[in-house]
Amino acid sequence: MRELLRDISATASFNRWAGFEVVRAGGGECELRMPWRAEDMGQYGGFLHAGLIGALLDTVCGFAAVTVVPEGQSVLASQFSVNCLAVAAGDEFVATGRVVKAGRKQIFTTGELHAVTGDDRKLVATATTLLVPTG
Amino acid sequence: MRELLRDISATASFNRWAGFEVVRAGGGECELRMPWRAEDMGQYGGFLHAGLIGALLDTVCGFAAVTVVPEGQSVLASQFSVNCLAVAAGDEFVATGRVVKAGRKQIFTTGELHAVTGDDRKLVATATTLLVPTG
Amino acid sequence: MRELLRDISATASFNRWAGFEVVRAGGGECELRMPWRAEDMGQYGGFLHAGLIGALLDTVCGFAAVTVVPEGQSVLASQFSVNCLAVAAGDEFVATGRVVKAGRKQIFTTGELHAVTGDDRKLVATATTLLVPTG
Amino acid sequence: MRELLRDISATASFNRWAGFEVVRAGGGECELRMPWRAEDMGQYGGFLHAGLIGALLDTVCGFAAVTVVPEGQSVLASQFSVNCLAVAAGDEFVATGRVVKAGRKQIFTTGELHAVTGDDRKLVATATTLLVPTG
Repeated sequence: MRELLRDISATASFNRWAGFEVVRAGGGECELRMPWRAEDMGQYGGFLHAGLIGALLDTVCGFAAVTVVPEGQSVLASQFSVNCLAVAAGDEFVATGRVVKAGRKQIFTTGELHAVTGDDRKLVATATTLLVPTG
Repeated sequence: MRELLRDISATASFNRWAGFEVVRAGGGECELRMPWRAEDMGQYGGFLHAGLIGALLDTVCGFAAVTVVPEGQSVLASQFSVNCLAVAAGDEFVATGRVVKAGRKQIFTTGELHAVTGDDRKLVATATTLLVPTG
Repeated sequence: MRELLRDISATASFNRWAGFEVVRAGGGECELRMPWRAEDMGQYGGFLHAGLIGALLDTVCGFAAVTVVPEGQSVLASQFSVNCLAVAAGDEFVATGRVVKAGRKQIFTTGELHAVTGDDRKLVATATTLLVPTG
Repeated sequence: MRELLRDISATASFNRWAGFEVVRAGGGECELRMPWRAEDMGQYGGFLHAGLIGALLDTVCGFAAVTVVPEGQSVLASQFSVNCLAVAAGDEFVATGRVVKAGRKQIFTTGELHAVTGDDRKLVATATTLLVPTG
């Protein structure tokens, strides 16, 4: 499953640009890692842009959903709601996603984003995402 | 105001990377434009990544909020909720944001994202965003 | 359509208790009215309870969606996101809902809630709601 | 703390009507119980109305937040986002809320709603709620 998601991620040009790395995936869960780059990921204050916070959470939740749909199917994000708990500053960011309920028409997921600096690991954002299985 | 927001946008490395252009701003409203780039903005199907949908909407709502806070203050995104209505395919994307209610502690905004291809202009996503004025 | 929605509303015991009145409905839009009752609708401060704010917005958005589904179909609320802009105090409350995008699998709607006291009409909450057509 | 929240709940006329019972509260967490009443809590299909789903989740999250603010302060719901995972049918409903992050200006919470019938306990909805501490 991790290999499948790495292949899917590699076909997405934005994921390649952002450097999303699939750390683990399976059983309705996924973990993504993204190293910080000051030169093209910052908001005006120099911290991680809220757009990338949303991108990480949306992607990890989508990948978690992919682990529970039948082979050959994919998912499309329909609705996502992001809570920004703290300024997102770190050397890298780790997003985890989990399927809460998988239906035939809709898959509900939840995600967390941690900023990591050395041994320090801080929860900076949470999200819920609703996905629709396709094809 | 448009010049101020262009300056703010220019200080954000992600905004520079994404090519956000402030088309107009003032009076609680803002419009952003972003040309499409297949090589680093796509999801696995080749359309605009949901992360960039969220980034455009979050940014335009934040800029709309900046137009109503006292000079010298800024805003931080606290919560945003995005509805993806249709696959986001176009030559460029136009995001519009509007302040619904500006309080001292919180600013509520709403936004729309249109995909534009030639004369065709299609609503592909909507969002509501909650921002907190800072310093 | 207004008669159909009145009939649907009358079959819902909560709607009867709350006194929801369908003012108009059709073409992807709906308006509901609810008179204020201090004795069973208040939160601890004596204003309209956030649960009823959500109930009015969820219901009016659902009714707006019903106006666009094929006859005999209904809708179920899947996700709703509510922004409470101001304390909800008034003699009556008027909720309006509108379909933003109606797909085969999902219907996206938006709603507004106004508190009305005499000639005064104040926007107190907004919502977006996602509904799924059923059987 | 449980007594304090029972007193607060008793001052809210809607909470009295709905029969919310504070089962436990403290340390950023709360649990509410509400017995089902077909005669005034149903939607058109006879299940728990989405408005009451939202009311339970909003209330339990607010009460969880109250457990972490300084004595004498209260909270107001600012934004809540509800996911309806399954039709809500049961003899009683149990809502649990938890503070995710408590800041000076904003408190982020999350909640779950279970439908209970005999020994069966089913997750029917989740929510995230953002509250603002007041006076």
